Formats: sequence, C-alpha cells, structure tokens
Amino acid sequence: MNWPQRFRASAVSCGLKKDGEPDLALVVSEVPCRAAGVFTRNRVCAAPVRWCRHVLETSDAIRGVVINSKNANAVTGEQGERDARRLADRAAERLASEEPFLVMSTGVIGQPMPMHLYEPGLERCCDSLGSAGPEQLARAMMTTDTVQKVVARELDGTQWVGVAKGAGMIHPDMATLLALVVTDAALPPEQLQDALREATDRSFNCITVDGDTSTNDTLLLLANGVSGQAPARWQTLLCDMLQELARLVAFDGEGASHRVTLHVRGLATFEEARAVGRTVLTSPLVKTAIAGKDANWGRILAAAGRAGVAFDPGVAELSWNGLSLLSDGTPTNPGAEAERSAVRGESVELVLRLGDGPGEATIWSCDLTHEYVSINGDYRT
Amino acid sequence: MNWPQRFRASAVSCGLKKDGEPDLALVVSEVPCRAAGVFTRNRVCAAPVRWCRHVLETSDAIRGVVINSKNANAVTGEQGERDARRLADRAAERLASEEPFLVMSTGVIGQPMPMHLYEPGLERCCDSLGSAGPEQLARAMMTTDTVQKVVARELDGTQWVGVAKGAGMIHPDMATLLALVVTDAALPPEQLQDALREATDRSFNCITVDGDTSTNDTLLLLANGVSGQAPARWQTLLCDMLQELARLVAFDGEGASHRVTLHVRGLATFEEARAVGRTVLTSPLVKTAIAGKDANWGRILAAAGRAGVAFDPGVAELSWNGLSLLSDGTPTNPGAEAERSAVRGESVELVLRLGDGPGEATIWSCDLTHEYVSINGDYRT
Repeated sequence: MNWPQRFRASAVSCGLKKDGEPDLALVVSEVPCRAAGVFTRNRVCAAPVRWCRHVLETSDAIRGVVINSKNANAVTGEQGERDARRLADRAAERLASEEPFLVMSTGVIGQPMPMHLYEPGLERCCDSLGSAGPEQLARAMMTTDTVQKVVARELDGTQWVGVAKGAGMIHPDMATLLALVVTDAALPPEQLQDALREATDRSFNCITVDGDTSTNDTLLLLANGVSGQAPARWQTLLCDMLQELARLVAFDGEGASHRVTLHVRGLATFEEARAVGRTVLTSPLVKTAIAGKDANWGRILAAAGRAGVAFDPGVAELSWNGLSLLSDGTPTNPGAEAERSAVRGESVELVLRLGDGPGEATIWSCDLTHEYVSINGDYRT
Repeated sequence: MNWPQRFRASAVSCGLKKDGEPDLALVVSEVPCRAAGVFTRNRVCAAPVRWCRHVLETSDAIRGVVINSKNANAVTGEQGERDARRLADRAAERLASEEPFLVMSTGVIGQPMPMHLYEPGLERCCDSLGSAGPEQLARAMMTTDTVQKVVARELDGTQWVGVAKGAGMIHPDMATLLALVVTDAALPPEQLQDALREATDRSFNCITVDGDTSTNDTLLLLANGVSGQAPARWQTLLCDMLQELARLVAFDGEGASHRVTLHVRGLATFEEARAVGRTVLTSPLVKTAIAGKDANWGRILAAAGRAGVAFDPGVAELSWNGLSLLSDGTPTNPGAEAERSAVRGESVELVLRLGDGPGEATIWSCDLTHEYVSINGDYRT
C-alpha cells in the first residue's frame, strides 16, 4: 500500500518494544499541509494533545506528525510538555520545515518520556523517510493491538490512507487513541474541522471497548492538496473510512473473542440511540455474557434502562443474531436449542428497538474475557 | 442474633437453589408497621419494585415483606405484575393482615416466575414464622453472594437489624439490590423517607461493583414502634448501619480478590467527589490493575478525568496504601520496591485529592478478576 502523493513516512525501533518492533514513526508531507484534529475530552489530557491543539489553533499549515508508542506522555507535569514540544521542534528543524509538526503518543500514563531513546530514534526517522508504508506506520503505533489498522481509498483522482491504533482504554469522546487520515485531495480548508468532527461522531464515537476514555485520544486529518482534486463526495468517503478504522479498533479490543454490533432503533435522536448503545456495550455483565456465549438478554435491557434515556420498556424488542428474544416488552422464550444456535460463532449482531422514533445508531464493540483481565492486570510489567 | 421486638421471619427452599438452600423468605411485623423505601432509578424496573412503590404511596402501614431469590421478576410483562401482587396478597390473606405486604425479588431477568414453586413455598413460610433469624433471611436472599450480610445495633432501648444481598449488577442509583432494615423504634413517620434517602446517599449510593445499576434495587426500612422509644440519634445510627451493609456488599463483589476504599477530597461538593470516585472504581482498567497488584495510578487519573467534574490535574495528589504516587500533579516515582510493598495485601486504600474544596466522599468497591468473568459468563447455566 502506498501513501497519497508527496507523503512519506518512516518507522524505527528505539528499543522500547520487544523483538525490535518499531515504536517511533514519522509521517511527513513534502509540501505544507492542511490539518484538522479531534481530541479527547478527558480533563486529564496528555501533553501531546495540548501541543496539537495549540498548533492547530495557531498555524494554517503543518508538515507532519511524530508518533511514539509505549509512553503516553500523560500526567507527566511540565517536563512532559517540554518533551512533546521537543519532538515536534526537532523534526521541523532537522527537515528544515517552516511549518510545525504534530505529536501523537500512546502507552503508559504517568512515566517520564525516555527522551534519551526517542531523540536518537527521531534522527533515524528523519534520515530514513520514505522507508515505511502505511502498514509499518500502523505497526509502530500498536500497543496491545493484535492487528494493524489501515484502510485506503481512491476517489475522483485523490488518494486517501487512514491508520489507527487502539485496543484498550477505548471509549472515545472525540476520537480513539491515535488515528490519522492523510490525503492528497485539495479539500476546502474551512470545511476540514467540521467534516472531521461529524464523521467522528458516527464512527469513533460509536465504539467502546471498556468505557475508559483515554487521556490521549487524537484523530488527525492531513490534506496536502497535491492531487489538485476536490471530490464532491469526500465527506461521505471520510466517514466511511473512519467507520472502518473504528470497527477495526472495536473488534480488536483487548482480549476480545467476539465482534459485537448493536443497532439501537426507535428513539427520538441519534444521540439518544448512541447513548443507549454505548451504555449497553460498556456493561461488564453484557460483555461477560457474550464472552460466555449466553444470550442473557435481560442484562441488555437492564443496561439500556440506566442510560439516562426515556423509553417505554413495554414496547421493547430485541433480537440476537436474528433470533427474536423480546417482543412488545414480553419474552419470546424461543427455547434453549434456538438460543444455542443463535450464539454460535464469533459475531454477535443485536437489534434493540425501543419505540417508533426516528433516532437510530450502530455501535461496535467486543466482549469482556479472561484475557482482558490478564492483559490489564500486568500491563506495566 | 434476634429480630427486634415483634418481628418474626421464616425462610424455606422452593428447590430453586442447590443443596436445599433457602430461596424464599418472609419477614413479618406482628403489629402494623411504618415503612419507607428507596428503589432503582433504572427505567427498566422490576414488577416487585413497582408493587412496593404503589404500596408505599397508598398505605400508611404495612405488615411484612416476601423475598424471593433466583428470579428477578423483571421484564416479565403483565404476568410479572400479577405474580408480584399474588405473593403479597397471598401472604396478607394467609396471615389475616389488613395491611399489605411488600415484595423483593432478585435473580435472573426476563424469565417468568416459577409460581408453582414459590406459592407452596410461601404457604410453608407462613406456617413456619419465627423459625428464621436474620442470618437465615440473609441466606435466602443470596445469589452470587459469598457471605451473609447482616448487621445489628441497639440504641436507647431500641433494636435494629439490617440485612442485604448483592454482589453483581451493583452500582446503586438509590439502593442496592435488596436491603432491609427493621427496628422496633418508634420513629416519626414523616421523617422516615427523607432519613432513608439521606442515609442511602452516603452508603449504598457510594459503592459500585461493575457499574451496572440493577432493575431490582430495593432498600426498605420497617419500624413497628413496639419499643416505644424514639432515640435522638437514630438517623446517625441508620446511616452507620447502611454504610456497614454497603461495605459488605461492595467487598463481596463477584470474584473480588481485593477490598478497595477510595477517598476523594478537595472538590466543590460531596456529589462531585462521589461522581469522581464512582467513575474511578467503575473503570475496568483501574479494577484489573488492582487485581494484578499493579499500582498503575495513571489509570486512576485518566478515569477521574472523564467523570464530568471540573478539576485541575496540575494540583492532583494520590496515595496508594499510604505511599505517595503523585504530588502537585507530578509523579513521585517512589521506585519499584516501594510500590511492591504498597500493593501487598488484600486491602487497597486510595486517597485522591483534586484541589482545596470542601467536597469529599468515600467510595467502596472491589477489583475485577478472572473469577468475575467466569461467574458472569455462565450465570444462567
């Protein structure tokens, strides 16, 4: 897979990951590039998030992004602020760029950045620009991810590539922990931010792994305009790409053994439907039942009921992989055999109808397994 | 342990639990009795909850409570409403009571009540009144609980007994799944409801196991006045009893291997401090770190940051079993040896200061273990 025109990237190992896996990456546009970003709403937000916000507020164009994994640079005090800025400034200096660089970080919270490893790594990144395709960049971003998350599209002579990482601490309240879309399309600058926000609402803000909103959630859109084309349908394309990346993140949730898709229908608004859906798929009881292949649908209704959204349980309908379990608020009792058949397989598709309203949303998530507990019981060791 | 004066109880097995453990119980006041209740705010609430609300709104006095486990009688349609009422009416009829009975149910959601087992069981309960002490009643309420939850107090010539059950689906938004306090104190009827609500706010509403608010949460206070005494300090006593019961529930969380107490300080109000505390101790990442004896305090800050409460992370302080990990928003890096020593043992006491405000709250909870996943992956089988 190739980058869109005039984008180049590199990825190196600073020795923080085992087996020489890359843990630092750089993506650069050879020409000044428009950018938009959405970031975590967590009150405790990481230094690189503050740096990106600052750059996007004060600069019309940027030149690239430095991305490190294994350290989130969050809750690291003023030293953390200096470290984020240092990475950005050093990349700009080394590549003789007049436009600033952004920074994305992911990993452990509350530990000082090992700058003695990242700084020489960044020099090597600058020296080896062009050596990494989107897949290598995606690898460098990974922490507990088990698969690379990359999507590519073409539209009316423009190239688009999106990469993401994320498996735990996933309950985006803006974007998920590190996602990047780059394109050579010539997009109208004044529309970038709104389009990114809108597409995020229907993609990354519709997934959850564990209900924990990260301190580092960052989604960036870079458009260098080199293709000279501005496709009419670019906003639809962007939303489609982000949904695919979001599903990749949700289904690769830490320890996941089932892919879960929940359609909530019949409420007043999209926002209400999404709130119910995220509450249901954040519920440990729902998620462990799915892990145990138990169509324990009562837990889904119980979780929906605490979402803070008004509905009449007396008209609720629920199906599990096509099997109706609740109709007009009354259990259908399809029998153990039918239930066993419905829960077979690694995909769970739930349809929950809570009325006749026009509001609906689709939420993507995964189950809660022993493996999740193991992964997160000793993440730092 | 004895009941307060003129209270009597019984507990029988209807064959729903293994090994002949009791699954149906009855507690009766021999004289008309004042009652107050707080109930789940979940929009999907069980039939017995609706029945209790109806009785407390329409009757000045009640005579007792029918309590069943193994079936929550929630999302059971109109048949569920009839079944709840049938249990209450049958007890009143059989005991020739002019005052109504309340009903508390706990167990699986969405399955019809096995009335062919509960009805004959209730007859036996009526026949054997006086045979069960508070411990036997507590046993009959248990589902995944591993310990009986009973507390008893005396105050100025009055007797008080409280029982509770609950281990999963615990994130009370009123009261936890089934708790009952009975006393022979002569309490001012007009103060009962407010006092119960206030004490609940500082006790059951300060615990969480898994963030899942039950459909059946019910806390009842029964006061038959037989002692003729109205102690001045009864509201303090009530709060103290409820806190002890709440701790018993939180520390007996499904699969728990650690008892967790979190003091949140320095916010504007108690409500803000409680919101932060409950968010932190609902976080699967925090709870799995505790299970893994990893003082991964960054996750605590990250969870606090998404609680919807304003604070300045730059002044945050955190200690873990007395070991300072964060001071003035900056990691203290006490070293691996000190951390290992701090996480030793089965109790975790966290103090999180987020400013200089007067608002503080104490939250009780437990960790998230492999055992929780196992218990809830096959609860119905």
